[in-house]
Amino acid sequence: MALLDRFKRYAPPDTRVPAARLRTITRLLRVGAPDHLVRLLARLRPNEVADAMRTMTARDRRHLFDIVATRDPRGAMDALVELGGSAAADLLRERDPGTIAALLDPLPTDDAVSVLKLLPPPMAQRVRGAMQQHQYVDAVLEHAPQTAGRMMNPSVFALRETTTAGEAVAALQRSAGVEMIFYVYVTDDRGHLNGVTSLRRLLMVTPDTPLAHVMTGDVVAAHVDTRQEEVARIVASYNLLALPVVDDRNKLVGVITVDDAIDVITDDTTREMQRLGGLEALDDPYMTTPLWTLIRKRGRWLVLLFFGEMLTATAMAYYEDEIAKAVVLALFVPLVISSGGNSGSQAASLIIRALAVGEVTVSDWWRVLQRELLSGLALGAVLAIVGLLRIKVWQQAFGSYGPEWIRIGLTVSCSLVGVVLWGTLAGSMLPFLMKRVGADPATSSTPFVATLVDVTGLLIYFSIASVFLRGTLL
Amino acid sequence: MALLDRFKRYAPPDTRVPAARLRTITRLLRVGAPDHLVRLLARLRPNEVADAMRTMTARDRRHLFDIVATRDPRGAMDALVELGGSAAADLLRERDPGTIAALLDPLPTDDAVSVLKLLPPPMAQRVRGAMQQHQYVDAVLEHAPQTAGRMMNPSVFALRETTTAGEAVAALQRSAGVEMIFYVYVTDDRGHLNGVTSLRRLLMVTPDTPLAHVMTGDVVAAHVDTRQEEVARIVASYNLLALPVVDDRNKLVGVITVDDAIDVITDDTTREMQRLGGLEALDDPYMTTPLWTLIRKRGRWLVLLFFGEMLTATAMAYYEDEIAKAVVLALFVPLVISSGGNSGSQAASLIIRALAVGEVTVSDWWRVLQRELLSGLALGAVLAIVGLLRIKVWQQAFGSYGPEWIRIGLTVSCSLVGVVLWGTLAGSMLPFLMKRVGADPATSSTPFVATLVDVTGLLIYFSIASVFLRGTLL
Repeated sequence: MALLDRFKRYAPPDTRVPAARLRTITRLLRVGAPDHLVRLLARLRPNEVADAMRTMTARDRRHLFDIVATRDPRGAMDALVELGGSAAADLLRERDPGTIAALLDPLPTDDAVSVLKLLPPPMAQRVRGAMQQHQYVDAVLEHAPQTAGRMMNPSVFALRETTTAGEAVAALQRSAGVEMIFYVYVTDDRGHLNGVTSLRRLLMVTPDTPLAHVMTGDVVAAHVDTRQEEVARIVASYNLLALPVVDDRNKLVGVITVDDAIDVITDDTTREMQRLGGLEALDDPYMTTPLWTLIRKRGRWLVLLFFGEMLTATAMAYYEDEIAKAVVLALFVPLVISSGGNSGSQAASLIIRALAVGEVTVSDWWRVLQRELLSGLALGAVLAIVGLLRIKVWQQAFGSYGPEWIRIGLTVSCSLVGVVLWGTLAGSMLPFLMKRVGADPATSSTPFVATLVDVTGLLIYFSIASVFLRGTLL
Repeated sequence: MALLDRFKRYAPPDTRVPAARLRTITRLLRVGAPDHLVRLLARLRPNEVADAMRTMTARDRRHLFDIVATRDPRGAMDALVELGGSAAADLLRERDPGTIAALLDPLPTDDAVSVLKLLPPPMAQRVRGAMQQHQYVDAVLEHAPQTAGRMMNPSVFALRETTTAGEAVAALQRSAGVEMIFYVYVTDDRGHLNGVTSLRRLLMVTPDTPLAHVMTGDVVAAHVDTRQEEVARIVASYNLLALPVVDDRNKLVGVITVDDAIDVITDDTTREMQRLGGLEALDDPYMTTPLWTLIRKRGRWLVLLFFGEMLTATAMAYYEDEIAKAVVLALFVPLVISSGGNSGSQAASLIIRALAVGEVTVSDWWRVLQRELLSGLALGAVLAIVGLLRIKVWQQAFGSYGPEWIRIGLTVSCSLVGVVLWGTLAGSMLPFLMKRVGADPATSSTPFVATLVDVTGLLIYFSIASVFLRGTLL
């Protein structure tokens, strides 16, 4: 979304209370007062219109968009870009390619591309063909999804080294269509990126100073193939307002602004948290995701985990005779295995996040293993003591566990140390393994780790039981 | 961290390979070549120096900082600000307040405040007293932590409505110390925020145009008491480069830049993911958090969850006679309760994230409940069918479950529907409840939901069993 356009175009928001605003909009829709409606919406920022649209029914949303698109097409499209997802796609569905192309042409290229992405591929192809600025769109679409090239704006403000500061300012004054003018990129005569300066510095020097004298020679830049999450990381860690994009030969081909980097951060985090929670990442916001898609994306993982968890039934069946002899063993099964799952969940979320923000890299696995080994032992020991006390207290109060209570207590305590240690190690090492094989570390989700630890935890528990209780209860 | 300073001050990074760079730095440290070292570091950006420092031992880090601080104090402090956390605090520990004050004075106020925050309160108090820019620091520190007032930079570039565009540009040319000059805020004679314009627009109009004619009258602004996470949300959703901060009387008192908003987003996400994973949020990165702190922050929750999970042992003991009569019941306990935990984890992470990004608000709870009711039923039904098939197949292949296998299968299947439905509802509604009572929704973490569902899941399972198996196995 264009930084300056947004800033320039919008007058006061009507109200800061979305619910009241939504009621007004819906009333105007129902009453059939399109002029009032368009005037009200023109006073809102596009993200505010999108917020209102998000809380409407699909039918109202379509109705509203139809009204605005005929009277203020640019405003309607800006709101549609902010809305995003399948709700936005739905608004364009019944229009012909020519109309959509005409709506897209005035948008900044990165916004136009983000809308094209929402359309079914054959439709997107036809719309692209009908667009006037299709050479810009093509320059973006030729790059792979999830790369810098795919999110950049190919209209970038660049000048030569020999241009003077005064000429540069004059050029900026004529550059109404360019999104980002805070940084001025400096290229040689073949378009190679050689330096960067800022509008501020241009104003600080005498007008006849050549750009070569006010530019910084080395520029932090992204390659067209740089992954978008890496782009976001660079923008964030270098505190940049924009990042230039170059091709293989260091030719400046586009620019990515900080607002788009923030969108990448937000979307990546959402996907990561959904994976961490044990489901496939959604493409749309929760509320606008069709129920069927929601069930499918959760169901797949849930069934997969269920298959894994079935091994617990197999493992339990293997120890059926032991359980029959000492039913008391079964009582502590949920307690023991869930403690492993909980400690695994803690370790996994710590490491997955540390990997995501770059605090930890794959090469740190050994140092992490050492820390987690100690943490796991300490945490396991704490739970072992608490567990032993619990059994002792119940035994003294109710005589719950019979004469062999101390052996039972030791079985539970030792199992807790083993299971918590194992949970901690599995939870901390699986994300590294995922990253190593090129998968998203968050795939080793909390439920995944818990399932793994449940199955192995049972083996640990019953093995330890057979040692401590052999000859007495077993 | 100052946006433009950073951009202006730094020449080419020496290398893009952190490991090689770190080796060079460490070698220069060991060899004792301070001049080489300072020259090398001056070619790096502060975040690059901080990256290198992060991977060093604490001793090397202190040694490095001592060398740089004497020769390039501003460079050393910029890197320290980027480093942050207890590692940064450690670097200042043995200096006297006067020295620290002298190091802090040249920094932008928001950076100086972020360093003061790292020091023990009495020490911070003394350093503040010794600072020359202490009135700016006080203007920030008078606001509560986690508010806009506490993160703003009080040096903000503002001009009067009657100022002309030409005068404004001239004023900008003299404003070397101001961080953010892309937006120019317009105030009345008592400092009230009345409008905003941009450097770009100032250059587009004739020099004698008064600001009143080129400004946008309504400004999206934060109040000093606005929470920082809300600040970040506003900056992100309005695609702003900076957000002005006003007091109760709409007086402009500071500005927050987009880079600091990104830091808030990143830190909030980290805390949220750690809470979601079932531990207290860490104050420092994983690697620099002392092991003891790590164990304490995990241990507290782990013990709390363990106490909750102990109720499973109580519940199981309540059904001990049933288990003794039908050991086969025990076999499916982990399978049934973990399916509830998994579906609860999915629902909780979906809703917690949707609440965090504002896709869903507390008032949506009823619509969410309806969606989750349907999802839970559908997912439970799927697992019920898979579970029933599993039991049928095992029965036909191994005769595992005896003549009453169909009743056992129905018990497991119906329990799965109940437990998955319950897990989904608990996982989706608890975050709303947390938010409603003013707690962080992520407190209803995956392990918390799993524990809750484990205990209630056992009750569901054994209740259903007593219905289906009464008179046969029980």
